[in-house]
Amino acid sequence: MYFLTYLHKDEKNYGMLNKNKDKIIPLSEIFKSKTLNDFICTFNESILEEINNLMDSSNLNSIPLSEVKLLAPIPHPKRNIFCLGKNYLDHAKEVVGLPGADDNIPKFPIYFSKIANPAIGHLDIIKNHSEITKMIDYEVELGVIIGKDGINIKEDEAEEYVFGYTIVNDVSARNLQRKHTQWFKGKSLETFCPMGPYIVHKSQIPFPVELDIKCSVNGELRQNSNTKNMIFNIANVISDLSKGMELKAGDIIITGTPSGVGLGFSPFKFLNSKDKVECYIEKIGTLTNFIE
Amino acid sequence: MYFLTYLHKDEKNYGMLNKNKDKIIPLSEIFKSKTLNDFICTFNESILEEINNLMDSSNLNSIPLSEVKLLAPIPHPKRNIFCLGKNYLDHAKEVVGLPGADDNIPKFPIYFSKIANPAIGHLDIIKNHSEITKMIDYEVELGVIIGKDGINIKEDEAEEYVFGYTIVNDVSARNLQRKHTQWFKGKSLETFCPMGPYIVHKSQIPFPVELDIKCSVNGELRQNSNTKNMIFNIANVISDLSKGMELKAGDIIITGTPSGVGLGFSPFKFLNSKDKVECYIEKIGTLTNFIE
Repeated sequence: MYFLTYLHKDEKNYGMLNKNKDKIIPLSEIFKSKTLNDFICTFNESILEEINNLMDSSNLNSIPLSEVKLLAPIPHPKRNIFCLGKNYLDHAKEVVGLPGADDNIPKFPIYFSKIANPAIGHLDIIKNHSEITKMIDYEVELGVIIGKDGINIKEDEAEEYVFGYTIVNDVSARNLQRKHTQWFKGKSLETFCPMGPYIVHKSQIPFPVELDIKCSVNGELRQNSNTKNMIFNIANVISDLSKGMELKAGDIIITGTPSGVGLGFSPFKFLNSKDKVECYIEKIGTLTNFIE
Repeated sequence: MYFLTYLHKDEKNYGMLNKNKDKIIPLSEIFKSKTLNDFICTFNESILEEINNLMDSSNLNSIPLSEVKLLAPIPHPKRNIFCLGKNYLDHAKEVVGLPGADDNIPKFPIYFSKIANPAIGHLDIIKNHSEITKMIDYEVELGVIIGKDGINIKEDEAEEYVFGYTIVNDVSARNLQRKHTQWFKGKSLETFCPMGPYIVHKSQIPFPVELDIKCSVNGELRQNSNTKNMIFNIANVISDLSKGMELKAGDIIITGTPSGVGLGFSPFKFLNSKDKVECYIEKIGTLTNFIE
C-alpha cells in the first residue's frame, strides 16, 4: 500500500499505487480529503478495508506512473519535521570532534526540528546555497508518519499511532549547524527536505521496523545499515517525544542517520553541483535527488 | 493599533481595540479573513488606512473588553515559533555552566524552534508537567510577527517584513533542555507558549525597537531590561534568519530573554504551583499567566 502525491496535467492530487506498481489510483475522487495529509488525519480501519478492495478492482480510472511528476507525499507538513540527532551509534562515533557535532554518545534522544517549505520530491533539485555554505551533507533517514493524535503514548502502544513510513534525506549545511550552535537553521534551508517517493502503510512493514537503509552519491555507496541499529527505536521515540507534548496525525518524525555522511570522511565528502544522491530503504524504495 | 483574538459567547473571533482600549471592534465581519493570522497574510497599506478610519468611527458594533476571554493573538501558528537563544549579553553570562546552557557568549545568533499547540492566552494556566520536570522557568521575550513573505531580506529593509509585535513567555523545562541537548523538546511542552495579550502594529512602535521589558513572579521583579540590549537586533535577525530560508507572513520570531530567569539565581528560582507570572513590554502591555 504505497501512498503518494503527484502532479498530473498540472493538477496536484494524491493516490496510491496499484498492485503492479505501474499505475496510480487517484483517491481524492473517492475520499473527501483534499490532500494526503488530510486523508491520513481521517484514516481508520474501515478505510483500510476499502483501500484493500480498491487495489483489487480493475474498473477504476488509473494513471500510468510514468505520466506523473512525483511530489513529496506531504509537501507542506502542518508543523516542522521532528528530527532525531545521532541516533545510530556508528554515526554518533564518526562525528565526534567534528564541525556541528558535540562529543557525546547520546544517553537520551536528541530532538530538534526542520522546516519543509515545501518538502521536495523524488528527482527534484537540492539548491546549493553557495553564498552561505560549501558544506552540504546528505543523511538518509526513515521517516515515521503519525496517524492519530496522542500525548504520553506508551511504548507498547506506539505502533497504533503510526500511519506509515517514508524516506527523508535530512540535508544539512554543516557550517551553519556549527555557526548557530543549535541545528535548526543548518537543516532548514530551502529544498533541504527531500521526501518520498511514497508513504508505505504500516500494514506492509512488521514492527519493530528492521529495514536496510543505504545512501549512495554518484553510485558510490556511502551509508549502509539497518534501522534495527537505531539507539532509540521508533517505539522509544514516540513514547518519549510525546511526554507532555501531543503528537498529531500527519506529523513526521525522522529517526536519525547511520554512519557514512560526508562529514565523517577525512577529507570530508560534501555534496557538489550535479551530484546524484540516492536514498534507499528496503520495502519503501529509492528517493533520488540532484544537487543544483 | 492593538489586534487580538478572543472568545465571546463561545465564539472565536479577532478584532482590534478602540481608541479608549475598553472595547473590541470585531474585524471578521469587515474583512474576509477568518483568523488574525489570515488577516495578517492579506494586510496592506490600504487596509491600514481603512483600519485607522474604523478606529475613528463610532457607529460600529463593538464589544466591551471586559466581556471577552482573550486568546493568544495567533493560537495556531502555521509553523513552529522561531526562537533565539541567549540574545541578551547579561542573560548569556548568567547561565554559563548551568543546566541546559553551553558556556559561550554567542558570536552568531542561536536559532531553534518551539511548538505552540496551541499558544495560550492572557490569564491562562501553564501546566506544571510534574511527572517530567521540576525546573519550569520563565523567559519574557519580544515576539516579532512577520507581515509578508521574504527570503534573503536585507537588514535595511527588514522593517518592511514586520507586521507588529507581541509578548511571548518562552516557558522552558530546564532539565529537558539539558537531557535532550538540543532545546526543542524542553521548550515545547503543552501550554509552554503564552502569547499576547495583543499584537501591536509596527506603525505604533519606532524602529529600531527600544522598549522596556520586564518579568515579575508573584510581584517580585525578576527580569528588567530594554530590547535595545539585544546582541542581535531585529533587523540583524530577520536578515540573517532569512538567508536561504523563506520567512512567511504570520511567522513569529521570539527574540531572546534578558537576565533574571530562575536558572540564573543561586539557589534556582523555578516556578511553582499557583505562581503568577507577569511579562511586561512597554507599549504592548502585560501578559499574565498562572502555574497549575
